[in-house]
Amino acid sequence: MEQWFSELWTDDIKFSIRIRNKLYSSQTKFQKLDFYDSYELGRFFTLDDIMMANEKDEFIYHEMMIHTPMSINPSIKRVLVIGGGDGGSVRELTKYQSIEKIDMVEIDEEVVRKCQEFLPITSSKLTDERVTLLFQDGLKYVKEADKQYDLIVVDSTDPIGPGEGLFTMEFYQNCYRILNEDGILVNQHESPYFEKTKIEMKRAHKKIKSLFKIATVYQAFIPTYPSGHWLFGYASKKHLPNFNANVELLESFKLKYYNKDIHYASFVLPNYVKEELSQV
Amino acid sequence: MEQWFSELWTDDIKFSIRIRNKLYSSQTKFQKLDFYDSYELGRFFTLDDIMMANEKDEFIYHEMMIHTPMSINPSIKRVLVIGGGDGGSVRELTKYQSIEKIDMVEIDEEVVRKCQEFLPITSSKLTDERVTLLFQDGLKYVKEADKQYDLIVVDSTDPIGPGEGLFTMEFYQNCYRILNEDGILVNQHESPYFEKTKIEMKRAHKKIKSLFKIATVYQAFIPTYPSGHWLFGYASKKHLPNFNANVELLESFKLKYYNKDIHYASFVLPNYVKEELSQV
Repeated sequence: MEQWFSELWTDDIKFSIRIRNKLYSSQTKFQKLDFYDSYELGRFFTLDDIMMANEKDEFIYHEMMIHTPMSINPSIKRVLVIGGGDGGSVRELTKYQSIEKIDMVEIDEEVVRKCQEFLPITSSKLTDERVTLLFQDGLKYVKEADKQYDLIVVDSTDPIGPGEGLFTMEFYQNCYRILNEDGILVNQHESPYFEKTKIEMKRAHKKIKSLFKIATVYQAFIPTYPSGHWLFGYASKKHLPNFNANVELLESFKLKYYNKDIHYASFVLPNYVKEELSQV
Repeated sequence: MEQWFSELWTDDIKFSIRIRNKLYSSQTKFQKLDFYDSYELGRFFTLDDIMMANEKDEFIYHEMMIHTPMSINPSIKRVLVIGGGDGGSVRELTKYQSIEKIDMVEIDEEVVRKCQEFLPITSSKLTDERVTLLFQDGLKYVKEADKQYDLIVVDSTDPIGPGEGLFTMEFYQNCYRILNEDGILVNQHESPYFEKTKIEMKRAHKKIKSLFKIATVYQAFIPTYPSGHWLFGYASKKHLPNFNANVELLESFKLKYYNKDIHYASFVLPNYVKEELSQV
């Protein structure tokens, strides 16, 4: 019998993946967690039946999330990752020998442990000695933190369920507070295409823009996220999103998506997206 | 009862749209033709159960297909459109008063007539006095044509069924022959993401590259085509894909996707796409 995993991208649009078998299923303390093996995308996992990461295209999301800010300010040394339980963002960060410290705050330890079991492709660098795993609520963490960071990566789920707090004004204000003057904030910023995600895109942008001198979004082709047109937020107290990286170093990483030209192209938005963002 | 239209993007990936009702269904002389009304995308039509155009995002495909070559060589006057039965490419072309003649060669008259009935959003300019509709096989037309064109737009279906001939060496050779020295060819070029469409992307690129001095691809976010990462082929005997348009004229069109910065960004390819294309 054929088995399919289906995700409702909206009430009226459905994306389905034929699966080989289900590897794991659990109701964690925070959410529903499932791992599958599929024909087209390899292994993938979902939270509350929403695609998080899969072996075929996780590189796009994680490369764009990390190498964009790292290329804007290559002297980043101290990084805070909020969420990102699969470890993909941390994996990209550990490619930089110049980074000294990575604190990863993930609310759900079970996500991390099961990604270590089923998705080594993303989670293999969580044991890097510069990484500290903190299993706690990201909103609470930033509220109480008295450290300063050069980069905060908000690698969150959608703004429902456990990820909701990571889209609040209180959260962004505390991120601002614990970022130093060179600080950069990047975050998962939903899609501009469907009404449902467009509303979240605008809400997040409005809040971040009210706090940071420089705030914009950039985009990538991520076919397994709703609409395939996915955005990242970029905010900084000081740095315009210009490329300042060492191209040779970047090329040594042998990335599959990101490059210097993609950096600039990813900030170029279609008219309808610019129009929506200008309304906030 | 809920009704969904489903398209297999690959054997193992399915994209489904909840429909309000079916407006029309027919087996034409060439293919299966269906029109639907949907909740998320408005009206749309399919050929052999593959999405062709919908009210929500047809503007992306048609703007990118037309304004890209028109901005590279704004002095284009004589245009041949092959396929494009919905009329969307012609609609964008008619925005240029400088264009003198548009020949549209579509194999299936029923597609045109039913788009005129159900999709006025794309088909409304097919009655422009500069447009000549020719209901015949595009492959045969270019073989026998003794006219010269400044621009050929290959607005085809996938390379199966009636669209197959529009991906052959014989077709491209005849396009080359009937393009003048300033000539530009743009074509629907599939997606780089899934194996199935990637093979077609590479096949088409290999053939076009063997003929034209300048041959590359550009891309757009089209969420309702497989993977949402869709390519267009760009080929020319002479013109590099630089933007040479009058920005004021372009802005007067009030486009929803294309602009000068998007022009350049659309030619910037992710590493994995560059790598695949360099292999042909």
